[in-house]
Amino acid sequence: MQPSFRIEHDFLGTKEIPNNAYYGVQTMRALENFNITGITNATEPLFIKALGYVKKAAALANRDCGVIDPKIVEAIVYACDKLIAGEYQDQFLTDLIQGGAGTSVNMNANEVIANIGLEYLGHQKGQYEYLHPNNHVNFSQSTNDVYPTALMLALYRKLDFYQEALLALQASFANKGVEFKEVIKMGRTQLQDAVPMTLGQEFQGFATTLGDELRQLKQAQTMLLECNMGGTAIGTRINAPEGYPELCTKYLAELTGLPFILAADLIEATSDTGIFVQVSAALKRSAVKLSKICNDLRLLSSGPRTGFNEIFLPPMQPGSSIMPGKVNPVIPEVVNQTAFYVIGADATVTMAAEAGQLQLNVMEPVIAFSLFTSINYLTNAATTLRTRCVDGIKANVEGCREMVMRSIGIVTALNPIVGYETSAAIAKEALATGKSIHQIVVLEQQLLTQAKWDEVYSFQNMIHPVFINDKRVGVERK
Amino acid sequence: MQPSFRIEHDFLGTKEIPNNAYYGVQTMRALENFNITGITNATEPLFIKALGYVKKAAALANRDCGVIDPKIVEAIVYACDKLIAGEYQDQFLTDLIQGGAGTSVNMNANEVIANIGLEYLGHQKGQYEYLHPNNHVNFSQSTNDVYPTALMLALYRKLDFYQEALLALQASFANKGVEFKEVIKMGRTQLQDAVPMTLGQEFQGFATTLGDELRQLKQAQTMLLECNMGGTAIGTRINAPEGYPELCTKYLAELTGLPFILAADLIEATSDTGIFVQVSAALKRSAVKLSKICNDLRLLSSGPRTGFNEIFLPPMQPGSSIMPGKVNPVIPEVVNQTAFYVIGADATVTMAAEAGQLQLNVMEPVIAFSLFTSINYLTNAATTLRTRCVDGIKANVEGCREMVMRSIGIVTALNPIVGYETSAAIAKEALATGKSIHQIVVLEQQLLTQAKWDEVYSFQNMIHPVFINDKRVGVERK
Amino acid sequence: MQPSFRIEHDFLGTKEIPNNAYYGVQTMRALENFNITGITNATEPLFIKALGYVKKAAALANRDCGVIDPKIVEAIVYACDKLIAGEYQDQFLTDLIQGGAGTSVNMNANEVIANIGLEYLGHQKGQYEYLHPNNHVNFSQSTNDVYPTALMLALYRKLDFYQEALLALQASFANKGVEFKEVIKMGRTQLQDAVPMTLGQEFQGFATTLGDELRQLKQAQTMLLECNMGGTAIGTRINAPEGYPELCTKYLAELTGLPFILAADLIEATSDTGIFVQVSAALKRSAVKLSKICNDLRLLSSGPRTGFNEIFLPPMQPGSSIMPGKVNPVIPEVVNQTAFYVIGADATVTMAAEAGQLQLNVMEPVIAFSLFTSINYLTNAATTLRTRCVDGIKANVEGCREMVMRSIGIVTALNPIVGYETSAAIAKEALATGKSIHQIVVLEQQLLTQAKWDEVYSFQNMIHPVFINDKRVGVERK
Amino acid sequence: MQPSFRIEHDFLGTKEIPNNAYYGVQTMRALENFNITGITNATEPLFIKALGYVKKAAALANRDCGVIDPKIVEAIVYACDKLIAGEYQDQFLTDLIQGGAGTSVNMNANEVIANIGLEYLGHQKGQYEYLHPNNHVNFSQSTNDVYPTALMLALYRKLDFYQEALLALQASFANKGVEFKEVIKMGRTQLQDAVPMTLGQEFQGFATTLGDELRQLKQAQTMLLECNMGGTAIGTRINAPEGYPELCTKYLAELTGLPFILAADLIEATSDTGIFVQVSAALKRSAVKLSKICNDLRLLSSGPRTGFNEIFLPPMQPGSSIMPGKVNPVIPEVVNQTAFYVIGADATVTMAAEAGQLQLNVMEPVIAFSLFTSINYLTNAATTLRTRCVDGIKANVEGCREMVMRSIGIVTALNPIVGYETSAAIAKEALATGKSIHQIVVLEQQLLTQAKWDEVYSFQNMIHPVFINDKRVGVERK
Repeated sequence: MQPSFRIEHDFLGTKEIPNNAYYGVQTMRALENFNITGITNATEPLFIKALGYVKKAAALANRDCGVIDPKIVEAIVYACDKLIAGEYQDQFLTDLIQGGAGTSVNMNANEVIANIGLEYLGHQKGQYEYLHPNNHVNFSQSTNDVYPTALMLALYRKLDFYQEALLALQASFANKGVEFKEVIKMGRTQLQDAVPMTLGQEFQGFATTLGDELRQLKQAQTMLLECNMGGTAIGTRINAPEGYPELCTKYLAELTGLPFILAADLIEATSDTGIFVQVSAALKRSAVKLSKICNDLRLLSSGPRTGFNEIFLPPMQPGSSIMPGKVNPVIPEVVNQTAFYVIGADATVTMAAEAGQLQLNVMEPVIAFSLFTSINYLTNAATTLRTRCVDGIKANVEGCREMVMRSIGIVTALNPIVGYETSAAIAKEALATGKSIHQIVVLEQQLLTQAKWDEVYSFQNMIHPVFINDKRVGVERK
Repeated sequence: MQPSFRIEHDFLGTKEIPNNAYYGVQTMRALENFNITGITNATEPLFIKALGYVKKAAALANRDCGVIDPKIVEAIVYACDKLIAGEYQDQFLTDLIQGGAGTSVNMNANEVIANIGLEYLGHQKGQYEYLHPNNHVNFSQSTNDVYPTALMLALYRKLDFYQEALLALQASFANKGVEFKEVIKMGRTQLQDAVPMTLGQEFQGFATTLGDELRQLKQAQTMLLECNMGGTAIGTRINAPEGYPELCTKYLAELTGLPFILAADLIEATSDTGIFVQVSAALKRSAVKLSKICNDLRLLSSGPRTGFNEIFLPPMQPGSSIMPGKVNPVIPEVVNQTAFYVIGADATVTMAAEAGQLQLNVMEPVIAFSLFTSINYLTNAATTLRTRCVDGIKANVEGCREMVMRSIGIVTALNPIVGYETSAAIAKEALATGKSIHQIVVLEQQLLTQAKWDEVYSFQNMIHPVFINDKRVGVERK
Repeated sequence: MQPSFRIEHDFLGTKEIPNNAYYGVQTMRALENFNITGITNATEPLFIKALGYVKKAAALANRDCGVIDPKIVEAIVYACDKLIAGEYQDQFLTDLIQGGAGTSVNMNANEVIANIGLEYLGHQKGQYEYLHPNNHVNFSQSTNDVYPTALMLALYRKLDFYQEALLALQASFANKGVEFKEVIKMGRTQLQDAVPMTLGQEFQGFATTLGDELRQLKQAQTMLLECNMGGTAIGTRINAPEGYPELCTKYLAELTGLPFILAADLIEATSDTGIFVQVSAALKRSAVKLSKICNDLRLLSSGPRTGFNEIFLPPMQPGSSIMPGKVNPVIPEVVNQTAFYVIGADATVTMAAEAGQLQLNVMEPVIAFSLFTSINYLTNAATTLRTRCVDGIKANVEGCREMVMRSIGIVTALNPIVGYETSAAIAKEALATGKSIHQIVVLEQQLLTQAKWDEVYSFQNMIHPVFINDKRVGVERK
Repeated sequence: MQPSFRIEHDFLGTKEIPNNAYYGVQTMRALENFNITGITNATEPLFIKALGYVKKAAALANRDCGVIDPKIVEAIVYACDKLIAGEYQDQFLTDLIQGGAGTSVNMNANEVIANIGLEYLGHQKGQYEYLHPNNHVNFSQSTNDVYPTALMLALYRKLDFYQEALLALQASFANKGVEFKEVIKMGRTQLQDAVPMTLGQEFQGFATTLGDELRQLKQAQTMLLECNMGGTAIGTRINAPEGYPELCTKYLAELTGLPFILAADLIEATSDTGIFVQVSAALKRSAVKLSKICNDLRLLSSGPRTGFNEIFLPPMQPGSSIMPGKVNPVIPEVVNQTAFYVIGADATVTMAAEAGQLQLNVMEPVIAFSLFTSINYLTNAATTLRTRCVDGIKANVEGCREMVMRSIGIVTALNPIVGYETSAAIAKEALATGKSIHQIVVLEQQLLTQAKWDEVYSFQNMIHPVFINDKRVGVERK
């Protein structure tokens, strides 16, 4: 009977590897060494696919340089295609946070690809003399170019999904902007009543601001396509054949359909994490924006009787075991919390980027961890916000209008007609007595007729205040 | 005619020093080297006084060890007393943020003390052969024990002022707690109407929570009194006489009246910045609390017509050039911003503490900068909040009560009488129709008599809801 | 044939619940609403056990108050004991990050307990008329007291494990401190050669500094035992019987064996998150310290030929696919990254704490998430660091000694003998010519005999420099 | 005799204003209200100039709209030109951190401009009936468009200075890159010896990476030119004449020479702080980079005898009062600390941006404070680093070369010649015995002739390793 494991060795010694495992001795060491988060690279399928693309591009470039036997290249390409197709993800079990700058991830890929390739060639797993993780799969490569390049590719793809979710959310807000375009309400600055606006303008504002986020995310995303393949250990191209870096980059671009370019200064590119800091900052900026929007949604729906109560969020779950009928804004709340996570993760990325020393930033795995989770959580949050909240928001049309009419802020529109000083006096009286502006101006002091009042406080004039030239100019020119 | 400068030298060469300057060549170099913030050590009088105390303690300990001529000690002590008295602060012009782990601050003190001492001894500034900045003033010392010890002493004193300001603010909130103890209002969770409480309870809560802050600040402050005097360069006591560390600590305690102790492991103490991280965290925690309170004050005073409008903040300045009568919560706003500064400064301290390498943390000056400014700003903010806002807050008694009565949340008090299911049905109808609970329960459905209603919704029952045993238990036991 | 699901309802409608599920309709809604991290409450067994303790204490207090039928209490207690025993954890599937301030977690517990209890009473799951999640299990309670209390209990327990791991790590460093106590090496400040010390002193310093961390963690931990049970919705004790809060706290203390006390101001306690900010800060402080230590370990082991090379870390895995024999400090690296995570998580907690509004902090779930993961990761990191690195560290005894003797810093020890000026001149020559201090002092200038040299540079004098009274005092008094 | 003050009033009452003051009653209130940092707007001349530009553009637009008397416009323009010329800066004494979203800064400008204009028109300060701070200077404006627009303009200008400083620093590094292009040294990854490179490549890498920073700063800077002038209070253009927003933007562009455009959605633009978050992130990214570079400079210059000692930083000041001849890397150290400040300030900006509610972000002043100080400190730090450190760095040519030759990492170059297995064996022996690779390979095992050795380890082959086709391919194809 066959033993259920095989023996593999590296220069530190030997290890038993389960016979059905496609990974090898170095992955096994990593599994023993790194038990921090319990969140494995297998949870990031797009990263494993990205490794497949990078390794395939490298193999093809090596073939063209004539440094690897075409038969071996064929086996490597076969294995990479499996990874790209989403197979063998369960072989990538190392912790996302790991020492060694990603060496364990790279070796995990090398070992899995080698063993798939060995079986393709009719050999058994572990017969590395025919297809070696280092000598063949990793040829002309180093963790220090493979890991960051695969990371950039995975982030690029993941950002596509996040942007898709944001775009849908933006559309949802824009729809509400149209739906609410006739709903007049009080605008507020510093939480104090200001001047009227429409609820539609407010929701369109949310859509507009997400548009800004989409643009800046795209800007950061685009800069992910400068790779350092062929720099190998420290960027000096040691052990990479002439022409390989350019070829590898070309293949990477072809295979992925993305315009990858080769960094001009490979020494710099090998230790540089500037783009990850920038992507993290872009994610954080969008998290800040989502959080601000959710703060607003929670304020606007506060109540129902003792708050602003301008909008109704769709009820998602009972809000209290004590208070009958209480419903809470649970969806915006979970988005706020997600944003706080992302802001914290940005601090992590910042520390990690600053800690890079000399020719390499060894802290890249925690950068990967932070960016992966931030994008995942934000994508989920954006979709949750759209489908479980924004799409179902209703306006409290009557309540909004009533608040406008009982506000003091509407006196602002009388400035051009009765002058700032008189307006201020009216405001003062309203504040002191609790009376409405209408009562003082029309009913008591008869400064305006009801007809004129209706004209001034028509929907149109409140939303797009018309500058009343003759009156205003007169005031100013006296 | 006398030249307006003297020549001083160190092992890097010579420098012209203005003749009226008490600092010397090394301070001069620091003035040239460090021009980052423009905020000088002279802006921190308590730090300069602290240097005076530390240097005096060291001189007395050196005297007792017999390693410095008593006459010279007398001159050093004379000079230190001047610093302690608040004189010569304008001689401490180096930037708070500086390289060298505070060497420039220490040498600045050494030079100023030497020159004051020289004049006391009848010599001229710069005649260091009689009293030398290094050989006498700095004897048995190193920047690496003097700077952190003086920093700890200064922080201790500054924290006293901050706690004083917080204590006064706490009293102000407690006063309002008493003043508002009859003001019934709606409590809110998740910005949704919950159940009644009093405004007095809410303000007393602010006082209580500041009490927590005072306790934890005191806890951190107390741990500032473990010094490393005598550890010298790296904690091995090199060039410090036997007995000096203990003597110096004893004198420091006597002179300051604070129970300073000597760290048990001077090697560790020399590079350790744990206490600064803790003080920063304590400051941050109190900033978070102040910010939360100010967020609440702004919410509670939102309006006047379209917000919560439960309290009136004293108007401090016109809030708008456009909107007559608008007054904004500018004081809470400035406190929020101060809190954000402090939270940022905590990130700075964290990075700086983490960056310490081997036998010393060279980043201590930016830690000092961050903690000094955080304490200053928080102290100012706490006092501003008290004198310009909290002391003058008025309750909207009627408004608060009205909101309670028109709320749906008060239906909760009917649970024990009519049962949860009936309560929920009433709540549902109120929400759908906009009717008040009173209207449905008393006027329409006549579930309660007006007299019973008045009993249930009496002030006492709303604030301290009495558990109605017979009813409730019946419900539960059926 | 029985359907595979049952129908449950709440005031928002009905849901199908899998028949084998112990959770109910409200948990089901939460599963639909919150899909952010994919990390469930089931990953925190200690939190679920803590919920068991809290619910059991509440049931017993309710029983003593006579408000729940003892038979029902018996069933609830039975169910709670199951949770405490670690069963039914797979029923807690809601996302750790969730809206609603933890309502879903609380209702999940209520539902699971109710259904276990129902079966115990001989009923079927879902027959809530006999034992109701809200009316019985949650009686006298609110999410707003249950959730934070259970969180505090879980954190308390988890901190025990972290402290245990740190304590073991401290012992490991202390052992090395003893092992290396004869290894003389160069101390460094600002990365520049300073004066000699022993490697034992350095490692003992790591142990000492972890001792500080243990103390401050304990300090924060102790403050987790102030609960707000009985405050219910907003701290006014609404719907809780007289005496319940005190009884419940008493039972909680008895059941857990921890000295829980009741908060004096339940209003304040309900919205307060100060203790979580403090625990997070304490975790962060310890992370900063671990990171500093790991930075040092990486520096000290840098090389092997072109770095400091003072210590040898045990090789854990091959460090490079290109460079034969390269071994990297992967364990300290992974600890650094863990520390960065924790520092980021502290920013998250800070934001969440600041965002609490009015009578409740709705952001508590992300605080729980951050603290849970931080403690988990730190505990793992501390254990990993000990078992896979520190325990196996070896000293480069000869290399360390050689570096001391070829250093210029040792000239410091000549100050008291030949004077500072002469020492400085020797240092200057050494620096300029590359000669050793020994060569200049003994061989060339014959300032010291070899015998005197040996005395001055004996191990004892280098580590505990003896102050040479006659010489030194002479120098100072001249 | 004339009184030394005049009386001014606003709707809260009257205030005495010093007669020589150009500011008025609202500035006076702000001076009383906001005493937090002691750092005034007067410390930011470019911000005051920016206010001059914005107010001038507004006045001209008002003139063209026919809403302000041309004579009054002339006076306003006269006053604005004074501000633009740098005069009257001492009139801007309000604290940079202030409540009110910048209202006090805007009113300060309005009052100063009004009073300068009044004198120009032959009136006295305070005779606002002829030229009013609100009715004329602030016409068609609100703090909510003026303040952020002036802030954006000031930041734009300040970023020019920072980029200039970075550009000069980049050139300095590039010069060193050329100067050191023949200096062979050991590259290091994870602080472990890797493979050779040149010191020139390393310094050119610093230059390259600063180039990335310059690009991303420019990217962020460019987005500062979208203003919201004319949105007034909340973006609805209330009280601004038709056409004014476009005209005002046009004038702003003309006067400043910068391509300002008008935001498409003024509602959104009024509350949006996304661009400030982005600028802060860009500053932070550059701070991270500067800090990384300074970490490297400190590592590379560590020693002189027990560190890496590859470069010599110019000595700027004595490093120790105890250790003769010690010189520390004080300039990189101060840059590290500056970077930590900036990273902390980014946390502040993040919090402030997230805290914006509804139609305005009231926290903008602390954003301004953070960005102003960050840019100032970074600009100073970059210049300090260049002039006081990088320009004077020297290479330790011999030391670098020696370390390469005694390294084990150079064995990597033998892989293609003797095979990976043999190389690994040689490496192992070298590590175990302390022997050099040369000794083992040439002298002992005679695997290479000295001539071959010299060829392989020629400068050219080490820096640009030539792939040796026949050998390598043979190895691979066997």
